[in-house]
Amino acid sequence: MTRVAILGAAGYTALELIKILLRHPEAEIVAVTDLQEGQPHVAMIHPSLSGRLDLCVEKLTPAEVSAKADCVFGCLPHGVSASLVPLFLDGGTRVVDFSADYRLNDPEVFATWYNQKHADPGRLGKVVYGLPELFRDQILGARLVANPGCYPTSAILALAPLLKARLIEPRGIVVDSKSGVTGAGRTPKLISHYPECNESICAYNVGRHRHTPEIDQILTTVAGAPVEVIFSPHLVPMDRGILTTTYSQPAVDLDEEQVLDTLRAFYAQEPFVRVVDHLPATKDTVGTNFCHVTARVVRGRVLTISCLDNLIKGASGAAVQNFNLMYGYPETTAM
Amino acid sequence: MTRVAILGAAGYTALELIKILLRHPEAEIVAVTDLQEGQPHVAMIHPSLSGRLDLCVEKLTPAEVSAKADCVFGCLPHGVSASLVPLFLDGGTRVVDFSADYRLNDPEVFATWYNQKHADPGRLGKVVYGLPELFRDQILGARLVANPGCYPTSAILALAPLLKARLIEPRGIVVDSKSGVTGAGRTPKLISHYPECNESICAYNVGRHRHTPEIDQILTTVAGAPVEVIFSPHLVPMDRGILTTTYSQPAVDLDEEQVLDTLRAFYAQEPFVRVVDHLPATKDTVGTNFCHVTARVVRGRVLTISCLDNLIKGASGAAVQNFNLMYGYPETTAM
Amino acid sequence: MTRVAILGAAGYTALELIKILLRHPEAEIVAVTDLQEGQPHVAMIHPSLSGRLDLCVEKLTPAEVSAKADCVFGCLPHGVSASLVPLFLDGGTRVVDFSADYRLNDPEVFATWYNQKHADPGRLGKVVYGLPELFRDQILGARLVANPGCYPTSAILALAPLLKARLIEPRGIVVDSKSGVTGAGRTPKLISHYPECNESICAYNVGRHRHTPEIDQILTTVAGAPVEVIFSPHLVPMDRGILTTTYSQPAVDLDEEQVLDTLRAFYAQEPFVRVVDHLPATKDTVGTNFCHVTARVVRGRVLTISCLDNLIKGASGAAVQNFNLMYGYPETTAM
Amino acid sequence: MTRVAILGAAGYTALELIKILLRHPEAEIVAVTDLQEGQPHVAMIHPSLSGRLDLCVEKLTPAEVSAKADCVFGCLPHGVSASLVPLFLDGGTRVVDFSADYRLNDPEVFATWYNQKHADPGRLGKVVYGLPELFRDQILGARLVANPGCYPTSAILALAPLLKARLIEPRGIVVDSKSGVTGAGRTPKLISHYPECNESICAYNVGRHRHTPEIDQILTTVAGAPVEVIFSPHLVPMDRGILTTTYSQPAVDLDEEQVLDTLRAFYAQEPFVRVVDHLPATKDTVGTNFCHVTARVVRGRVLTISCLDNLIKGASGAAVQNFNLMYGYPETTAM
Repeated sequence: MTRVAILGAAGYTALELIKILLRHPEAEIVAVTDLQEGQPHVAMIHPSLSGRLDLCVEKLTPAEVSAKADCVFGCLPHGVSASLVPLFLDGGTRVVDFSADYRLNDPEVFATWYNQKHADPGRLGKVVYGLPELFRDQILGARLVANPGCYPTSAILALAPLLKARLIEPRGIVVDSKSGVTGAGRTPKLISHYPECNESICAYNVGRHRHTPEIDQILTTVAGAPVEVIFSPHLVPMDRGILTTTYSQPAVDLDEEQVLDTLRAFYAQEPFVRVVDHLPATKDTVGTNFCHVTARVVRGRVLTISCLDNLIKGASGAAVQNFNLMYGYPETTAM
Repeated sequence: MTRVAILGAAGYTALELIKILLRHPEAEIVAVTDLQEGQPHVAMIHPSLSGRLDLCVEKLTPAEVSAKADCVFGCLPHGVSASLVPLFLDGGTRVVDFSADYRLNDPEVFATWYNQKHADPGRLGKVVYGLPELFRDQILGARLVANPGCYPTSAILALAPLLKARLIEPRGIVVDSKSGVTGAGRTPKLISHYPECNESICAYNVGRHRHTPEIDQILTTVAGAPVEVIFSPHLVPMDRGILTTTYSQPAVDLDEEQVLDTLRAFYAQEPFVRVVDHLPATKDTVGTNFCHVTARVVRGRVLTISCLDNLIKGASGAAVQNFNLMYGYPETTAM
Repeated sequence: MTRVAILGAAGYTALELIKILLRHPEAEIVAVTDLQEGQPHVAMIHPSLSGRLDLCVEKLTPAEVSAKADCVFGCLPHGVSASLVPLFLDGGTRVVDFSADYRLNDPEVFATWYNQKHADPGRLGKVVYGLPELFRDQILGARLVANPGCYPTSAILALAPLLKARLIEPRGIVVDSKSGVTGAGRTPKLISHYPECNESICAYNVGRHRHTPEIDQILTTVAGAPVEVIFSPHLVPMDRGILTTTYSQPAVDLDEEQVLDTLRAFYAQEPFVRVVDHLPATKDTVGTNFCHVTARVVRGRVLTISCLDNLIKGASGAAVQNFNLMYGYPETTAM
Repeated sequence: MTRVAILGAAGYTALELIKILLRHPEAEIVAVTDLQEGQPHVAMIHPSLSGRLDLCVEKLTPAEVSAKADCVFGCLPHGVSASLVPLFLDGGTRVVDFSADYRLNDPEVFATWYNQKHADPGRLGKVVYGLPELFRDQILGARLVANPGCYPTSAILALAPLLKARLIEPRGIVVDSKSGVTGAGRTPKLISHYPECNESICAYNVGRHRHTPEIDQILTTVAGAPVEVIFSPHLVPMDRGILTTTYSQPAVDLDEEQVLDTLRAFYAQEPFVRVVDHLPATKDTVGTNFCHVTARVVRGRVLTISCLDNLIKGASGAAVQNFNLMYGYPETTAM
């Protein structure tokens, strides 16, 4: 049994994480923390947990957390994570970090995209990116895992096999993503106010979304050549789900079946990626840790279409998958 | 041509009002005010007005407003309205007031339900309640009209004819209403944050919603006997629309057709109320100034079902209907 | 390990049932049947099952089903069920029946509400109604269980404790329910065509919904006095969830806390009913087997507000709860 | 006053058309036709027209239509239109054709994409494409106008100015479109069944949607060079609206402001196209005849983002705009 603490308990990823961990036979939730005053019961913040998790939300120091928990799931904002993670690691506590703080290798790139100096730059480049489909070996037994962003997971799982097989050109890849509104977090703001975003779709942060360098970095590693994607996220009136459509130039003479076969071979043994023939819908994956992916060739251009639940395979499900690998539990436990 | 000003321009009722007035051949929008700093263009606050209304949002004193406008539409919070309306009237400017400030006759009742002393108590009881289907004669030429609440309009239009005809008992009437989320306003808060209220329905303010005394008062007047409704509003995951289902005891031996006939006779000449045979859906009325209403008799209980667009017949459409009556324009102008 | 078959696999309750049973350590899905031609893979009908259940949908005779399975979950239309259930029982196969065929005790009542003669009238009155909170003892070890309707579960769980404690009058109870669209099934029709029901709420089948006699019968049993509810279902633009608001007359002098205490005491030991202080939202229960319930007293009327996921506690979750009780597995297994 | 008939009255475009024409001072709706039996009142098919249009839906021969109406709006399926339009024109009746039958110039291209021989091939190439922003002069006084498809309007309005100014390469343009569900029509089918498409986004008909050759043809004309777009439509859980994101290669050295200026100059005098600086949302245009468009340059690629209401600027609003031009009424009448 592993004792786990969840930091930043008020958000949607934390809620989803709690629901998954409640089904985990080897994890015991021993603490949930947040900045809320007065130690409210977790069911006051998340009414869906009524009678399911009997804990109050606490304000705890890192030392107090380390004393209670073997492993921490950090659902904290970027910047905050990097100031706390070293303390947990020093306290002997392992960390699955949901923030972007340990995903990028280069502190300069971090500073450029996140508008702040990194608090723990020496560790960058040494932390495994928690996408088991690409980096499982390094996740096994790891003490710190950088849990991937939701958009990057959807784009990387679709493109990595094709780049690795050199079927597509690394340059000029278009990534057109569509996400549900939970991706914007739980803090009320105008863009996610119901009557504003309901019955409407819009693009946002075109060309400057912070997931861009993360996609670039991982795909560059996989391709062995510089990748700089043109990334346009869109906000879709639904709770959950990401659908990512990518457009790239073939690097070789190819046909659709060959692209699909490359995907199928790559993911043949994977428990949570399904290469499908039909055009998948986000709803096929919502509530699960699966990513569905397919490909098409249209007028000489290679298209991939992939989807997943941004809160599960794009966040909390991936986190538990990483947790399982870190602790040697069967990878699919609780999912 | 009547020069109009709209106070409190940032909200949904103001936006809807502007859209209706842009179609009005006898109204010219000369000013829109709000508390925003820096006089932003109205299209920055409401992008749907891009290229349709070329005005900046201003902070104006009541005197400045009166100098510019013949008529003011006040989309202001309760409490604020009552502090300004006397100034407009003194300045010779007529007012359609969207707030609750002039709907109730009794300052004590206002104080009880709104938790504040009324700023202009002497005027209460002398202001017409702007529901033309009941009070048209008093609205004609009026200088101040209290625009009705959205829930009250849906409930009163369904019940008033039956109470007036003494078909139903005034006591123990249940009003179960269901509203879209624009009813909660445009200020971001958790209850109207998309992932909270989407894909969910809940009751709120059960037994203590501020529209309760307004329904009581108007129905009491109509019935000639005290009415105290049991009112339960519900929040429905949709932008607009109110559906109100009421349950009451018959006061006489009656059948369904008789109830329907009473409604049909009452509204035979009304331009904006339709008595329908089928069970209406809010969508039948969204985007219009219509109220659809029907009735059923089930196991000896009289049910009415009525619906309307909370932003139009429940707010801005009714306001323009009142404006038309105040100025002698054809009542259906711009609708 | 119990071998189970699912009949009528194309619908939403069957899909939900499969997802729950895939997590059940003591159930093995051995067959799924439907009227589809050509034995399509279950993932072609439900893409969300891709890579999760490797079965083709078969057309099987009752004898073939009985040879393969120990227990059948019948997700079949009413009328069809009653023609097959006797064959399964004779074949030694137990049945959890999702249809309405075995819920009512009186063949006459069935004929009146369902417009058809009952195919197996002799068994009526001898089959347990599968609501464990009221009839657990009779479900234990049962060979046939009538799985309750979704609306009845939401209404009965809220009202039964108050009727049993004689806090409310059995006569004149109003049941105003609001349901998501999955309740209308998976067959495309105009009422559940997206642009028709999206962004709209309507009442339907007012006073003549077939769940009415089911609510009457169970509450009459509990109250020991005739109950005839005034039942109005409404269709809400969301996938899942039922919220039921009831209005009844107190039978004794009471206050709100007393009503809540009665509910709390009744459900103190129940694994899947939570009595909450706040006004619950359907989303608090969606995806779970929980029912949340609260009560209010407003102007001398007793209100209850209860919610649940119509596909889980209102159908497939309840079915697995019953299955667990029938086979002696822990009642909460797989949930 | 022009007498108009609407053919194919049961669909969403017809409903929207009726609502617009009810506000048109120079149009009188004299007949609505459909294949429904029994001449139902139009309000039985579209309850939102209750008390607003007092006509029954008729089955009429083309000669009967021509005898009654000066102008026909044909909301008919492709194939059907081309068999009737010649009869209307011979009868002296003008036509605004919503179908795809007269949009393409080449009967071979029509046959390839629509899987049928064209019924009136001799007229192809001589019918004006009803996009006033590009072909206003030819629409003025026309007797037959091919009303554009919804996706093509959104893509062409964004790309045509840039192709005409030779700012972007005509080859390899990616058109990633997102549409609300009304685009799929009013006939119930599984893909638009509420619980299937709600809370989900998917791509469909990727690379083989029938609007592809229409976009190709018009952009080829504008560019003076062959255009073959890579077109991926997506289905978004909302009633109305299309957002189209395009990606193209610059043909010259350019920056973002230059692209925006080109758009601004092109549409400076247009009543219904707004070039905006911000990223527009479909909701900004829903319920209006406006198209909002903007552009970005990201990593050397030109992006355009445009949106409109598929039922108005993408169908019925454009049709009335065309009608106004055909008859010499002010172009913005009724909008």
